[in-house]
Amino acid sequence: MTNLSAQTILLPFPGNTVAGVALGNQLGVSPQRLELHAFPDGETLVRLPNELTGRNVLLLCSLDHLDSKLLPLLFAADAAREQGARQVGLVAPYLGYMRQDSRFHSGEAVSAHTVAAVLDRHVDFLVTVDPHLHRIHSLSELYRIPTRTVSAMPAIVDWLRHEVRQPLLIGPDRESAQWVAAAAAELDAPYLVLDKIRHGDNAVEIVMPELAGWIGHTPVLLDDILSTAQTMITAVRQLKQHGLPDPVCVAVHPILVGDALSGLLAAGAARVVSCNTIAQPSNAIDVMPLMAAAVKTLCH
Amino acid sequence: MTNLSAQTILLPFPGNTVAGVALGNQLGVSPQRLELHAFPDGETLVRLPNELTGRNVLLLCSLDHLDSKLLPLLFAADAAREQGARQVGLVAPYLGYMRQDSRFHSGEAVSAHTVAAVLDRHVDFLVTVDPHLHRIHSLSELYRIPTRTVSAMPAIVDWLRHEVRQPLLIGPDRESAQWVAAAAAELDAPYLVLDKIRHGDNAVEIVMPELAGWIGHTPVLLDDILSTAQTMITAVRQLKQHGLPDPVCVAVHPILVGDALSGLLAAGAARVVSCNTIAQPSNAIDVMPLMAAAVKTLCH
Repeated sequence: MTNLSAQTILLPFPGNTVAGVALGNQLGVSPQRLELHAFPDGETLVRLPNELTGRNVLLLCSLDHLDSKLLPLLFAADAAREQGARQVGLVAPYLGYMRQDSRFHSGEAVSAHTVAAVLDRHVDFLVTVDPHLHRIHSLSELYRIPTRTVSAMPAIVDWLRHEVRQPLLIGPDRESAQWVAAAAAELDAPYLVLDKIRHGDNAVEIVMPELAGWIGHTPVLLDDILSTAQTMITAVRQLKQHGLPDPVCVAVHPILVGDALSGLLAAGAARVVSCNTIAQPSNAIDVMPLMAAAVKTLCH
Repeated sequence: MTNLSAQTILLPFPGNTVAGVALGNQLGVSPQRLELHAFPDGETLVRLPNELTGRNVLLLCSLDHLDSKLLPLLFAADAAREQGARQVGLVAPYLGYMRQDSRFHSGEAVSAHTVAAVLDRHVDFLVTVDPHLHRIHSLSELYRIPTRTVSAMPAIVDWLRHEVRQPLLIGPDRESAQWVAAAAAELDAPYLVLDKIRHGDNAVEIVMPELAGWIGHTPVLLDDILSTAQTMITAVRQLKQHGLPDPVCVAVHPILVGDALSGLLAAGAARVVSCNTIAQPSNAIDVMPLMAAAVKTLCH
């Protein structure tokens, strides 16, 4: 472990440089520059630093918007190996395509399987934060390479303990129930889980329970992924009608499509905060210490 | 061969529907609909038609701008196999990433190898038109799956024979020499190869030879790939100063980035025509009969 810094090359992809500094600090490694050149024809040239022979190469790349990121990532992984890297690890704070984990209608591709099959063959290990495990229960069902799933829960609980008085944790849908229950137990706080009815990619309806018993508590909406945030925006709007303090919105993975962030604030959220798994203005909860600890268990 | 139409499912990707009709006509197969749904978070859901069991599935997708196309293509290939397809073939009229076929500077990824390694594992065969083979001499150096490289030459020569009187074939750089020589031999026409000096992605300089002996001939600039078309635009502009008829520009693969097409016409090209390997307004030379013949040798 003492030699980790000398043996390890940390390469953040574009969009991951802030996280790269935070992770590098935890590992005692200075992030190095990965060059991506876009040719006029739309192709990407990847160039790695020299002197990779015998080193552990860590590719830091959050896998939101993966369609356009996958190929440059594979180029970097293959190039690192060709240049003598001992290990090529992927540190992907957000692991995309985990929601298409089943064939919901005939003929549909099960994207989670394909992504795993590709990554499996090009990197030696994978470290990620709270993958969206629903029908798939563990990354080992998808991956043959060693994986570590870091739970953001300790960092979120720590943030809530310091920043929110008398929290009432609220899971916006049933998929978040287990998750919110665990955070509530850790905080010794009450929790609720809402019922969501989805009418399409952007249209949701929420069934709000009786809240009169929770006057004085600050509602904390907690979810793993904030994408369009339509569910949470609807929940914020409805919560505002119950005489509670303005809700705090917390997410692990802030994809925050389009005007999701401003939409949450406009709906009346007191704050919108997230872990730093995807670079966003909402980043307030640092999970890189937890990631670094997981990375250290895989570098040898 | 007589049962090909009953056994084969042709699935053109978006942007390949016109080519899909042309290829389908040659194969006696109606193209079917491949659904791509874009989720708000940037992920893509692929849905295939039903009843693929025991069929040959042909995925028709030109591989320009591959970064954003690869993952949906892999989803489709894997889904076809999971749904019982006997064979999943990739018909890629243009095969991208063949120009990064060597490590030109230390640390660079050799993209052609990575693309081949990925496709190799997800499709059963590959049919393409004139891949940019330069340092790599055959697709069999890259691929383990069966591949067929279709030469567009017969179609181009046929077009030139009918459309251009007294052609003087001109290769814009040395990489095109072998190619232009073969077309010239076929047409029994003279040819020249220009010297190109590249100063960057967009800046080129051309050394123009003595042309006084070719008055009355129509210059035909012939290249495999037209991307920014800077080389050909420069060549057109310089050719216009030598008293020859306005040049005709012919390409196999019309990537035609940005205003490349209008740039060629503004520089003084009489016509800009291409094979239909990438859907573009320049498409005038149909290579789908040649592709269909190659596909038939691989479907069983």
